Formats: sequence, C-alpha cells, structure tokens
Amino acid sequence: MTALDRTHRTAHPSWVASAKDHPQFPIQNLPWGRADEGLVVAIGDEALLIREALAAGWGAHFPPEVRGALRHGQVNALASCPPDQWRMVRHALFDALSDRDWEARLRPALRPQSKLTMRLPMHVGDYTDFYASVHHATNVGSMFRPDQPLLPNYKWVPIGYHGRSSSIVIDETPVRRPTGQVRAADAEVPTFGPSRSLDYELELGLVIGGHNRLGEATVVADAADRIFGVVLLNDWSARDVQAWEYQPLGPFLAKNFATTVSPWIVTMEALKPFRVPMPPRPAGDPAPLPHLALADDWTWALELEVELWTLGLHKKGMPPHRVSQVRFDEAMYWSPSQLVAHHTSNGCNLNPGDLLGTGTISGPTPDSRGCLLERTWRGSEPLQLPDGTERRFLEDGDQVILRGRAVKAGAVPIGFGACRGFVLPA
Amino acid sequence: MTALDRTHRTAHPSWVASAKDHPQFPIQNLPWGRADEGLVVAIGDEALLIREALAAGWGAHFPPEVRGALRHGQVNALASCPPDQWRMVRHALFDALSDRDWEARLRPALRPQSKLTMRLPMHVGDYTDFYASVHHATNVGSMFRPDQPLLPNYKWVPIGYHGRSSSIVIDETPVRRPTGQVRAADAEVPTFGPSRSLDYELELGLVIGGHNRLGEATVVADAADRIFGVVLLNDWSARDVQAWEYQPLGPFLAKNFATTVSPWIVTMEALKPFRVPMPPRPAGDPAPLPHLALADDWTWALELEVELWTLGLHKKGMPPHRVSQVRFDEAMYWSPSQLVAHHTSNGCNLNPGDLLGTGTISGPTPDSRGCLLERTWRGSEPLQLPDGTERRFLEDGDQVILRGRAVKAGAVPIGFGACRGFVLPA
Repeated sequence: MTALDRTHRTAHPSWVASAKDHPQFPIQNLPWGRADEGLVVAIGDEALLIREALAAGWGAHFPPEVRGALRHGQVNALASCPPDQWRMVRHALFDALSDRDWEARLRPALRPQSKLTMRLPMHVGDYTDFYASVHHATNVGSMFRPDQPLLPNYKWVPIGYHGRSSSIVIDETPVRRPTGQVRAADAEVPTFGPSRSLDYELELGLVIGGHNRLGEATVVADAADRIFGVVLLNDWSARDVQAWEYQPLGPFLAKNFATTVSPWIVTMEALKPFRVPMPPRPAGDPAPLPHLALADDWTWALELEVELWTLGLHKKGMPPHRVSQVRFDEAMYWSPSQLVAHHTSNGCNLNPGDLLGTGTISGPTPDSRGCLLERTWRGSEPLQLPDGTERRFLEDGDQVILRGRAVKAGAVPIGFGACRGFVLPA
Repeated sequence: MTALDRTHRTAHPSWVASAKDHPQFPIQNLPWGRADEGLVVAIGDEALLIREALAAGWGAHFPPEVRGALRHGQVNALASCPPDQWRMVRHALFDALSDRDWEARLRPALRPQSKLTMRLPMHVGDYTDFYASVHHATNVGSMFRPDQPLLPNYKWVPIGYHGRSSSIVIDETPVRRPTGQVRAADAEVPTFGPSRSLDYELELGLVIGGHNRLGEATVVADAADRIFGVVLLNDWSARDVQAWEYQPLGPFLAKNFATTVSPWIVTMEALKPFRVPMPPRPAGDPAPLPHLALADDWTWALELEVELWTLGLHKKGMPPHRVSQVRFDEAMYWSPSQLVAHHTSNGCNLNPGDLLGTGTISGPTPDSRGCLLERTWRGSEPLQLPDGTERRFLEDGDQVILRGRAVKAGAVPIGFGACRGFVLPA
C-alpha cells in the first residue's frame, strides 16, 4: 500500500556486527534519539553520534538547512523539514552503515547505547491524548456508566483532550506516587493523601512533523506526512483522583504528574513495511464523516506488551512478568491519519515535536487490556503474580515496562526499545 | 495586607508627561510587554525599550543574570529569576522614570506604543484553564444539568483542564470561525461545518514565575510568589462543537482553535495595592481542605468588562458597546493562590511563562456574565444591540474587546489595556 525502497529490503548486512538479526534495531530501523552528545541513531547495540558523523564527512551532500537541523540537540528541527528530507537522511544513514567503505570514518562516531545518557528526543510544545481504542473506551465506560458504556459521540468523534507537556519524562525516570484529593465511595467528604490506585496506560505517541498554520487544517489524505515517528508512551494515571476530579472538564491532576516516553523515535519510513489496512468497522457502525474518511486507511502491525517487575520494597522481588499483550492493529477504532486530521480540522496548529498519544491500547480479550483499571476490572479481579503477591493497582517499588515490535511476514521485525518507569513512594 | 513601598505611592510624577493620570499605565503600573525590539515596559502612551535602556546605562547595578534576562526577547527569563529580582527591576524602572536626571539618557529609548508591533509577551510552555467562578459554573451547569447545576466536587476541587499552547495569540490577531463536528438537538447524526455558536470567555491569565521541580508541590502559603503577573484572556469557544465532543474527557476542538491574551503583563507587585480579602464562603459551604487553606486569603479588586463592536460585514456597523461588566473579587470561588497550590499539589511542575486561565469570570447578575452562552442564556434571550441587531452568539465581523482596571480607594488605578479579537468567516 506504500512504496518501499532499498532501506526496507530484508537481506542487507550492516558493518555494525550487532545489528545483524538485532531484535530491536537492525539496519532497517534506524530510530532517532537524543543523548548528551546531541542527536543519535540506534544501530544494533550501538548508537551513531550524528554530530560526529557529520564532522567525519557523512551527509556532505545534504542541503545546509538539513545539516543545521541535524546539529540541533533535539529532533524538532529535523521534523520541521519536509518528509522528503527525512527520507534523504534515512537513505544516507542506511547507505553509510551498510557500506564498508564508510566503516573507518564512522566507527569512531559509534558508542555503545549502554554508555549513553538518553534525554527526551524532542521538545514537546503541546501534548494531546486521544481515546482511540474502542475496547478501552467500552471497558472503562461499562465500569462508570453500565447503562451506556460508549457515549453517542464515540463512533463519530476521535475523542481527545490536552495533556501536560512539562511532566513528560524519558524512559527510566522514577515516578513519584502522586498525592491528591479523593472521595471514597462511602464517604461524605473528600480527603487529601497519596493515591491508592496508581495505574499505567499502554499507549503509542505520534511525534508530529511539519507545520500547519493556525486556521488551516491538514486534510486526512495528507495526514501521514505529518507523522515524523512513533514512541511508546505510558500515561500514568491516579484512578481515585481521576474519579473525583474529572467531571465536567476531564482529567487533570490525575494524569499531569508524569507521562513517560521511550527514548527512540521509530520513523514513519521504518514503519512503512508494517502498514496494514484499518480493520473494517463493525456492521451497523456509521461511516466516518467525509473529513475523516480515507480510502485504504491504514494502521501498523505492532505487537505491544506490558511487563511488571518489582524491587520488592515491601515484599520479595520478582523478575519482569508480562501482564498484557495486545496487537495495535486489532485495538484501535480511529487510525493515525484520522487522529491528525481531526486534531487540525478546526484549524488548530500542530508543530514539529508535538506529541499525540493514542489513548490506552486495549484489545478484545482480558489479557490484552492496556491498564490495570481494566486488567483487574477496577481492582475487583486482582492479578496474581509469580512471587505470590497480587496487584489491584501499582505498589511502591513496582516498575512498569512497555515494549513494542513491528512484525509482518516478509519484513525484518523492528522494535521500539523499552519505556520504563519505577514507582517511588509519595 | 501586604507591604507597599515607594512604587505604590499615589503622588509621584513621571517625566513622561502622558503617564500623569493615565487611565491604564501611570508610573505605578509598569507592565511588561514584548515588541519586535525585545522587552518593553508601558509608561503612559509610550513604551520603554529595555535593551536600549540597558545600553544607555540603566540597570548597571543589576547582577549579570538579571541583565541577561532583560535582554531576552520574552519575559520567561526574567520570570525565572527570584521575586526579589522582579521587585529590584521594578524599583529601578520606577526611579529612572520619575527622576529627571535620567530623562536625557532614557528619552531616546521611549517609543509611542502606537508605533510598536506587539508580540506574545511570554513563551507559554503549558496553558491550563480553570473554572473558578462559581456563578459561571452554576449558570452553565443549570443549562446542561438542571437537576444538579454544581457537581459535588466543585466546592472541594478547583476544577481545571489543560488547554492548547500553540494557538495562544496576541491582542488584535484575527480569529477564524472554526469548523467542527456538531449534532443538532433533533438530529440523528452529526454534521461537519462552521460553528454556529461561537463565543468569547472573559478571563484573567496568571503568568507563572519561578519553578517547582517535578514531584514537589508549591504550598499555598508560597503560591503568591509563583505569580509573575496577570493578563486579560479570551478563551474563544465553539459551543455547538463543545456540547457534542466534551463527554467524557472535556473540551478539545471547541476551544483549541484560538486563545487571545492582552499584550501587557501587569505584575504582582503593581497589583499589591489592590489586594482585598477573598469573600467568605457562603454559610453551609465546606472549608477548603488544609492544603488549599490560606489564612487571610486574598484576591484583587478588579473591574472587568466586555465590549462588542462590529464592522458590519453583513449589516451596518456599530461602535463599541459594553455587554458585560463584572468585579473579579465578587465572582471567584477559588483564589489565585489556591489555583497555583492545587495545580502543583500532585507534584506537577509549573514553569516560568506558563499560563493559568481563571475560567470565565461571571458575577451574580445577568449583566455581569462573562460569555454569551450565559449572557443570552444559550441563545434564548438574545442581546439587543444599539444598531438594531441582536446577538445570540458571535457573527462574522464582530470584534470582542476585553478591558480591565484595578481600582481601590487610596490607590492610583491601573489598567490592563485591551484584549481584542476580530471574527473572520470560516
């Protein structure tokens, strides 16, 4: 459904030995990250320092504005270039990392990923979070509104809301359990204290590229060109705070204390071989209105999972244990293009580096639910863990690990790395 | 209730002649703005170019970091300095603009305000909008939930949500009527088209100063030091879009197409003489929980108003006509300090330049309601205008003008200037 090129071929060795058959970062991936040394690209277990690569002569044929963008510390400048230039840079990376003639010049620009301190790959001007998985919306709705799980607007409007940019943190940043105002079900008055129902949410984050001017929409047919790449995203949530505060204007303190993203932006171009058709809407559902309708609309064939791991602050420890596994292409009611088109349909301007969360990604089965609220059905069906403990919600000392891989027959699988967060006491 | 100093004295002439008895910008005000020439301070009908003033020798005694902050193009760097330094700069401005010995050196750094092109005074990292006027919340609630106008959380939680930073625009920026998805009351399915119920919202915007680290709250007793200053704010709203989209996660496209702010940040220090006690809560209302309780909590004595003016794109024109007038100190249920303390109470980090809208400011009487939704009671009681037309909601060619003044016996009144927006057709 999209044109593939030489960077997507399955048999293409890199002179970086660890890239061969690498489960996350083979040469077909080449995701962008940011270390203290500036922009970096993952290849196998290593990362290429882009400033050093430029100094070694790589990219000499790029236009000056692209070379300038690559010297910036974050991806925003590159993401503001046209998509053709994203592809040009990808091709130049691919060629240099697969051509032995480049090895002597570029090897000094490689560092083991384990030696780098990763930072947020982009400056997020605005962060939006959607609610695009119909299974998630149905599950949560049936807990809070048993008579009407899905509101009448759900199948017409890609529901979304604005989140907090300042508290977006990178993989491995500890997350402090938030304190907040809650009212117990049987209480007359609320109290203020540490949240007792801290949760994760398994999401993808779309990183925006390019600009649309205020007042001018990006139409759905052009929306794919507004996605620079994709990260894993954990939209931490305090369910007890949320339940008390969210009427009538939506979530606020229940979510704005932390949002964790993975360090590597997997590019639209790297994900091209994994595009699959959006599943048809169930019989009887309305067709999208014309401004949201895309012939041959697509999504990505991604396998996502959540692991729980605990240091055992209060109990014995436990190695990482998978608690959920879900296919992105089976979970979503609204496609990536529809989210972008909807967001700009009123003229709202999206800027490079802006982040669009998909909302919690839940599939149709219990073990594919993307947050503990659903996974334990509001705490009523606790998870039994291998260390003999159980979880209704997160405990201090728990670490949540999100993982993701793109997998499709005929393509070399690529990975998103990990998105980890460790829960500190309040 | 707070210590005043020489900059608040009533009789203090400036050598800038137009500052004397100026209704907006006497020497007691000294608000911050940004022009193409960098930071500027309003004085009478003029503005002082700060970079030129520094070059002329003003501020020579400031620490280097303050001089550096003042050379920045926006107020964010100054707002990140400690409040003592905000006051030091204010004193130096006041002294130089009232001391004739400075006139020869600083007069060349003055420009008529009418010759400057004003820009957004701050970079807004995150924009939050509250819902802190109980009259507004009660009015809107009684339209949508007649049986329960105020939800149970309202008197416990300062309700707020995150807005869009990218679409914040400065005074006089035209606002295009947004297009969006709406469902008529009697319709089976929604349609997509220009909003038919475009509205304004009269608000104040608190501009944040200083930092709190992620995970560390600013306690209510320290909250005043987190407010650098105040602007007028118009939170444009498409009511038909809002009604259809806002469940369950709050307003999104109904509001993120534009938010207009006034060009001058009136500082906390300039507003000190206008502090008045927060009105007592009505009998029977709960006391705030301890983390929101401030002995001698305060608000500001401000007179705010909305004017409507029309170019008459479709009809004959009309000069500015006042449609609402409200006292801030009679309208709000939650105080400025409570908004800041609540926002950070879960550890959410506020950064310099962040913007906190108060929510629509409505008083107890019909002519003090701060948006057309309330003013015309959802369009059922249209406003009769002097040109013989009526308004349920805004028409193309209308201009909305917000104005504000701080007025209190014994103090020289100061003004906020204007916050204007002209409605363009979709």
